[in-house]
Amino acid sequence: MMNVVDLITKKRDGGEHSADELEFLMAGMVQGTIPDYQIAAWAMAVFFQGMTAAESTALTLAMAGSGETLDLRGLAGSEALIVDKHSSGGVGDKTTLTVGPIVAACGLPVGKMSGRGLSFSGGTIDKLEGIPGWSASLSTAQFRQQLREVGLVVAAQTATLAPADQLLYALRDVTGTVPSVPLIAGSIMSKKLAAGADAIVLDVKCGRGAFMESLAEARGLASLMVAIGQGAGRQVTALVTAMDQPLGRAVGNNLEVREAIDTLKGGGPPDFQQLTQEVAAEMLLLGDRALIEEQEAAGEEAGRRAARFSVQEAIDSGAAMDKFVEFVAAQGGDATAVERPEQLACAPVTVELNASVEGVVSGVDARAVGLAVVALGGGRQQKGDAIDHRVGVVLASKVGDRVLAGDRLCTIHAADADAARLAAKRVLNAYSFAEETRVEPVREDEGTGEEVAGVGNEGATDWMERSIVLDRITS
Amino acid sequence: MMNVVDLITKKRDGGEHSADELEFLMAGMVQGTIPDYQIAAWAMAVFFQGMTAAESTALTLAMAGSGETLDLRGLAGSEALIVDKHSSGGVGDKTTLTVGPIVAACGLPVGKMSGRGLSFSGGTIDKLEGIPGWSASLSTAQFRQQLREVGLVVAAQTATLAPADQLLYALRDVTGTVPSVPLIAGSIMSKKLAAGADAIVLDVKCGRGAFMESLAEARGLASLMVAIGQGAGRQVTALVTAMDQPLGRAVGNNLEVREAIDTLKGGGPPDFQQLTQEVAAEMLLLGDRALIEEQEAAGEEAGRRAARFSVQEAIDSGAAMDKFVEFVAAQGGDATAVERPEQLACAPVTVELNASVEGVVSGVDARAVGLAVVALGGGRQQKGDAIDHRVGVVLASKVGDRVLAGDRLCTIHAADADAARLAAKRVLNAYSFAEETRVEPVREDEGTGEEVAGVGNEGATDWMERSIVLDRITS
Repeated sequence: MMNVVDLITKKRDGGEHSADELEFLMAGMVQGTIPDYQIAAWAMAVFFQGMTAAESTALTLAMAGSGETLDLRGLAGSEALIVDKHSSGGVGDKTTLTVGPIVAACGLPVGKMSGRGLSFSGGTIDKLEGIPGWSASLSTAQFRQQLREVGLVVAAQTATLAPADQLLYALRDVTGTVPSVPLIAGSIMSKKLAAGADAIVLDVKCGRGAFMESLAEARGLASLMVAIGQGAGRQVTALVTAMDQPLGRAVGNNLEVREAIDTLKGGGPPDFQQLTQEVAAEMLLLGDRALIEEQEAAGEEAGRRAARFSVQEAIDSGAAMDKFVEFVAAQGGDATAVERPEQLACAPVTVELNASVEGVVSGVDARAVGLAVVALGGGRQQKGDAIDHRVGVVLASKVGDRVLAGDRLCTIHAADADAARLAAKRVLNAYSFAEETRVEPVREDEGTGEEVAGVGNEGATDWMERSIVLDRITS
Repeated sequence: MMNVVDLITKKRDGGEHSADELEFLMAGMVQGTIPDYQIAAWAMAVFFQGMTAAESTALTLAMAGSGETLDLRGLAGSEALIVDKHSSGGVGDKTTLTVGPIVAACGLPVGKMSGRGLSFSGGTIDKLEGIPGWSASLSTAQFRQQLREVGLVVAAQTATLAPADQLLYALRDVTGTVPSVPLIAGSIMSKKLAAGADAIVLDVKCGRGAFMESLAEARGLASLMVAIGQGAGRQVTALVTAMDQPLGRAVGNNLEVREAIDTLKGGGPPDFQQLTQEVAAEMLLLGDRALIEEQEAAGEEAGRRAARFSVQEAIDSGAAMDKFVEFVAAQGGDATAVERPEQLACAPVTVELNASVEGVVSGVDARAVGLAVVALGGGRQQKGDAIDHRVGVVLASKVGDRVLAGDRLCTIHAADADAARLAAKRVLNAYSFAEETRVEPVREDEGTGEEVAGVGNEGATDWMERSIVLDRITS
């Protein structure tokens, strides 16, 4: 019989846990035989002493196996792989709303368990719930059926999925032990593994509007999650992407759904277009048998070109938008609200913020904008808070844009004038300006010494000057 | 309103708590408004980040003030100071049983709250409870009355004394956060401060049979406790004393009471004699008005000589032994069992261990001997375990003794033959031998850079070759 104090002491003193020990801790936590205070002390010891990749993988598997696990193999034809994607959380990140339909339209089934937003970071389910009638509460049977019939499903994570993660996260949240890379990686990957996908594309956000602020931290998290996923027998690719300013222009639930629909129709802001296409291409490259074969036969670059071509085709042909409408309807949503997104509920008060002097936008603090939207009622300060889907911010000017006095910076969408005034102040403070010519933000590479496959700006010049993808990690 | 997660995060990231913050944490813990898991995570953060002397003092005051505090001033005459002593815990440490009566016989009142033993370390109350009828359960009124009338009282710590310490210690015990110097110092000193003594002599044990194994650790703890006590307006001196081998020859409750009585009568093993005289002299030097004046007038050395003379006088005159009998009777104990200690209960089985070859004893692992006595039933593996007062070990040979084959090493006192056999094996393993001439154990000074007043061997040559006092810390 293992002794919990011995395990805490071992980690406290820098020891490495065996898989059995981590299994014992997680099982004891779920069964209630190990009290919260012991898990809390252990989590703080992990914060200080870290974990090896082997420990992180074992912890993740223990959490993934602590409840129900979905087996989706063979659901969509014996040959098809099921792909999932996960974002580590950012501001204005509506990527699931675009890549899901695109990839599904390309014939690759996408089955995704998703969470709700907290603090400055929004959640996919919150955004979709702004569509009248749409529901994320699906039984496992419904999830499987929709995956088979529509090829795209987004459900709320149930309490039976990775309960160890849910308990551990709730405890970390109140004990100052959230920012531990192995615990973050374990939390994300345990849900992904339990949700049954064969292949996973991770979008690890990096910058002021992300939980990982430095590139080194984001790379460390991405590498660890890739190692965990591969250790568990899944195909995993991680992109490290920029989250210093909000992604796209819209921040706030219904505003983001509209921007996602624009993008599915071939429009949308360039940075969000680019990220959508990159993530969708990665998903196809991991899961599409034909593309995998093409890549093997003709080389990586050829495969990547073919994947991007398929993504563009799905948008240009309208197939991606059609899939989105079909998906929304399948989960009870009002298809007309998606076909005519101007019908989605709008905030009663809008306030435009304009530049007072000439200059170049040198920064739009994503975290500050995210928190301003939370304050408008568009996000949660605490779990369980209600959300106003109408409110948010739409950025007219982003980093690198030259503005003249009187030019539009952004529009605040608010429930009332007081809230709008407060948000206007916060969002204005989020902007910084330079007087010189176009400012190129410099990102320091802190040199972790990890082997990373550089895509950076080279692979992205098709779409825009500066790539939003900072790194791509496959092993 | 303070936020607990913010406080945990502050300590986690190396910040320094204010007195208000520590007061808030301790009060919340006692009132139950701050859950155990938050205190546990905070304690682990303290383990890693430590505390400044100012923080430790504030924590100690917050814990001391969390419940009832005794005010003993003026109890024994308007001029008298009340002195207390505390040992950080060791094997064979029956010093309270000798210094209490000696100091009280010298006219200085000794009022002591004491604990019970745990693991390899024995407790004063356990030892005294082997005397038929003796009880440590005293009301505050009884405590004050006995202190006034007898000048010596030893009571069990009540639940109302420093409840924050009791709760925090219980939590640390099960969360791997016991070995944190500021938390250990706070735990000891909070009880001492709440128990109301004006002056405190601390005996910080150092070595294999102590919680602090290195001299640097022991000095660090001693210095911090002196700083805390002085910060709280008390007179405090700390001795750092050797605990590599058991103190004296007897380990086990009734065996130790007999050895204490021998020592009160002028006999006893030399190391225990020496420690008794050193600690008693320090108590007199802190609390005896006449000695304090003599020290001020004639210098420290003269004062120290006078204190040692008083101690020797109290033993030689029989006053110390008389005070012990009076004290035992005052707390309901059978005085005849103390006057004729051979009447104390004896273990039914004794086994003698003899040397198999000639050599010099180079070590007697105090912790191993302490754990062997616990296994015999003489100590506790867990709180609340019952104790067999009869059992234990008496060491015939200690470090530095030359033994010939067949010479006695020690005697095991056990409840039955099986227990004796197991203990014999453990105790034999605790012995190590050198074949060369007399071995002088070398103690490395790890050089903490702290200012310490060296007494070491110089001040101890009156009584024995090698001093058991390694250091003396007064500021």
